[in-house]
Amino acid sequence: MSTKRFILPESEIPTQWYNIVAEMPNKPLPPINPATKEPLKAEDLYPVFCEECARQELNTKDAFIDIPEPVLEQYKNYRATPLVRAYGLEKALDTPAHIYFKNESVNPLGSHKLNSALAQAYYAKMEGTTNITTETGAGQWGAALSYAAKAFGLEAAVYMVKISFEQKPYRRSIMQTFGAQVTASPSMSTKAGRKILTENPTHQGSLGTAISEAVELALNTPHCKYVLGSVLNHVCLHQTVIGQEAEKQMAMAGEYPDTVIACFGGGSNFCGLALPFMRHKILEGRNTRFIAGEPASCPKLTKGKFAYDFGDEAGYTPLLPMFTLGHNFKPANIHAGGLRYHGSGAIVAQLLKDGYMEAVDVEQLDSFKAGVLFARSEGIIPAPESCHAIAATVAEALKAKEAGESKVILFNLSGHGLVDMAAYDQYFAGDLVNHDVTADDIAATLRDSGIA
Amino acid sequence: MSTKRFILPESEIPTQWYNIVAEMPNKPLPPINPATKEPLKAEDLYPVFCEECARQELNTKDAFIDIPEPVLEQYKNYRATPLVRAYGLEKALDTPAHIYFKNESVNPLGSHKLNSALAQAYYAKMEGTTNITTETGAGQWGAALSYAAKAFGLEAAVYMVKISFEQKPYRRSIMQTFGAQVTASPSMSTKAGRKILTENPTHQGSLGTAISEAVELALNTPHCKYVLGSVLNHVCLHQTVIGQEAEKQMAMAGEYPDTVIACFGGGSNFCGLALPFMRHKILEGRNTRFIAGEPASCPKLTKGKFAYDFGDEAGYTPLLPMFTLGHNFKPANIHAGGLRYHGSGAIVAQLLKDGYMEAVDVEQLDSFKAGVLFARSEGIIPAPESCHAIAATVAEALKAKEAGESKVILFNLSGHGLVDMAAYDQYFAGDLVNHDVTADDIAATLRDSGIA
Repeated sequence: MSTKRFILPESEIPTQWYNIVAEMPNKPLPPINPATKEPLKAEDLYPVFCEECARQELNTKDAFIDIPEPVLEQYKNYRATPLVRAYGLEKALDTPAHIYFKNESVNPLGSHKLNSALAQAYYAKMEGTTNITTETGAGQWGAALSYAAKAFGLEAAVYMVKISFEQKPYRRSIMQTFGAQVTASPSMSTKAGRKILTENPTHQGSLGTAISEAVELALNTPHCKYVLGSVLNHVCLHQTVIGQEAEKQMAMAGEYPDTVIACFGGGSNFCGLALPFMRHKILEGRNTRFIAGEPASCPKLTKGKFAYDFGDEAGYTPLLPMFTLGHNFKPANIHAGGLRYHGSGAIVAQLLKDGYMEAVDVEQLDSFKAGVLFARSEGIIPAPESCHAIAATVAEALKAKEAGESKVILFNLSGHGLVDMAAYDQYFAGDLVNHDVTADDIAATLRDSGIA
Repeated sequence: MSTKRFILPESEIPTQWYNIVAEMPNKPLPPINPATKEPLKAEDLYPVFCEECARQELNTKDAFIDIPEPVLEQYKNYRATPLVRAYGLEKALDTPAHIYFKNESVNPLGSHKLNSALAQAYYAKMEGTTNITTETGAGQWGAALSYAAKAFGLEAAVYMVKISFEQKPYRRSIMQTFGAQVTASPSMSTKAGRKILTENPTHQGSLGTAISEAVELALNTPHCKYVLGSVLNHVCLHQTVIGQEAEKQMAMAGEYPDTVIACFGGGSNFCGLALPFMRHKILEGRNTRFIAGEPASCPKLTKGKFAYDFGDEAGYTPLLPMFTLGHNFKPANIHAGGLRYHGSGAIVAQLLKDGYMEAVDVEQLDSFKAGVLFARSEGIIPAPESCHAIAATVAEALKAKEAGESKVILFNLSGHGLVDMAAYDQYFAGDLVNHDVTADDIAATLRDSGIA
């Protein structure tokens, strides 16, 4: 029998996060103050973020940062996650490619998001915060954050994108089971929400609007900090436990990936898997391809513009260097709620600009087609977000078959779809469609968003 | 740092199932033909069951039975499952007890049920069957069987208890994603279903009625066999991979359980965890307690009668030796759908009668209270069924605290509750109640069921 799952003992869980910024030839551009256009210092972020997270956000020196012991203790609840050779999928595709996936879906909260939620909740607690607030799209980040808050004795308030709040009631229930307060966003409870709702009463929400509401709450509440599930450098940092484990596990399998693939919303699971492997491309010139799979309905990497833009709809955040569709971009109501975000995060923006990685866009119907194929061949129903990584993997595996090449492909199964079954129901019923975005649409929202 | 999860390498997955019947001092009574009252031979079961399963059902000789290689290959997709020290729960209870749980919830189908589904689907395929049919309560068995059928290239038809079909639409969707045909039971598609529905048009279904429908379909369809997710000896046999792994993992932890606990519906997850440990009680007189946690609304072990009874409502099955509430018992609509069954299975019936194990009943509200405590302290939302095991564990851990004794308690986390969030919503909303069954109720259904 050949080995299928590569398992690391607890002693092999990484004890440091990998900060690629310290080793990037071109550093990501800094966040800047929208008023003064000056680069921000860590202190400028303290009113909103935990101080340690703010320092990590701007850390360009330390390639490795210690994971605090209490966070490691929590990681031991579910890490290391398995690396799995997808023999079933290979057989279904009849491909000579070797396909591996890092299975973050076995995390009890259902996705990779807990890796950063625990870190951020821990720092918040250590700094005397009593309440944390955040946004969530499909609810994977919100669920993780709700548990992390409970684990460290904090209260959590989560703004959940309205369309997901309605599409995914079980994720709301999960957050509530962990004691979080969940509000559909846009809501009337914040100035930002009220402005959006009075201008557009049927607004279905987006990550950008939910961020605005959460940031506003943090700014106006004592002992309350804002935490974010993706995009920012420190979130990508915390996720690098994924790739560090995968490196060791690929070595156990006796292989090294030719291609590393992950879905892409703000960058958290992509960076988590890719950056530790990217290190070898940067330092040793290793010839690995990195592919971010984004939805065709929200194509910031493939069709967006490299520019400074706000991270949220209301313009509360600093200006961030991004590949962006404009912070006023209103993504279609696809089921991959975690990918409905207008911009890319500074690290990925720079890596894409510098040619270290590439991106593909995936149509909604192709994503579910790939997800169903994966479910039936591997027994795991993937999250709609992860289906985008699977679709990109299937495309690469079929190219390898065409070329008769035995490529090694590694993708991130960022989460399971057990709480997204309504999406599968709609897919099988033929009720889902693709949502394409034209160059004209993008030009218009970029203009609306103040980006020339 | 102390170890939290005890992980076995793939090479330590058991390669044999443990058949306790071969070593029981008093063998379980045989199934008998309702007409002749003669004990059944394996051949008598062939019209309904796979032949190998029928032989395993009546095997009283072999203590260990080889697991076929293709089944082992499938086990490698998710086994071995972790054994976890529940430090969080211990802390929440402030108990000196050491609490461990076997985490079957990381199975991609969400519960332990796949262990037997794969075996039964494999045997069906080997014997030339093209279609398999079964019943499911909460849908955990149905989901597992749907994937197992797909894995071995069979078509699956699942009769899902109507109340669960309505309460748990996501489990239905999961089955459909794997390509199964799912019918709410009782249905008009079988004689048994029509009889029930014409007598009682609002019948909410039970495992007993769904079994009748599935057996009827198998009997009337060429190349179609019936498979069952619990109760029968061969199902308990297949589940013993759980306990065999747990034995090795407890040894890694340097402990041996004083008390082994599992929830109880028909016996599959209880037997799976308990029987390999029970072996040492039988052979070596080891002083371990075994506790089955059943719902107070369906208290066959604590308040039922040891007698021969039908396994299904329509009386299609052989007569089985059971602790039973009568096959006409109509369980309340509790959310732990997998525990809504009137009888116990022959192995457990005998072990309980002979004093090798004990049973406790758990009220619905206590089960969810324990489940929420577990979720908040361990980060895993348990299935409503598993909440019964957790409630029994909490009770034992608190007794240990009272007595100042450092007991070692091991329980089976048979599944996660991510697809049961509607139940948690209702619990938090105060919409759930307890359902008690009186001695008079039971006497009446026993009489109705033809049991003196």
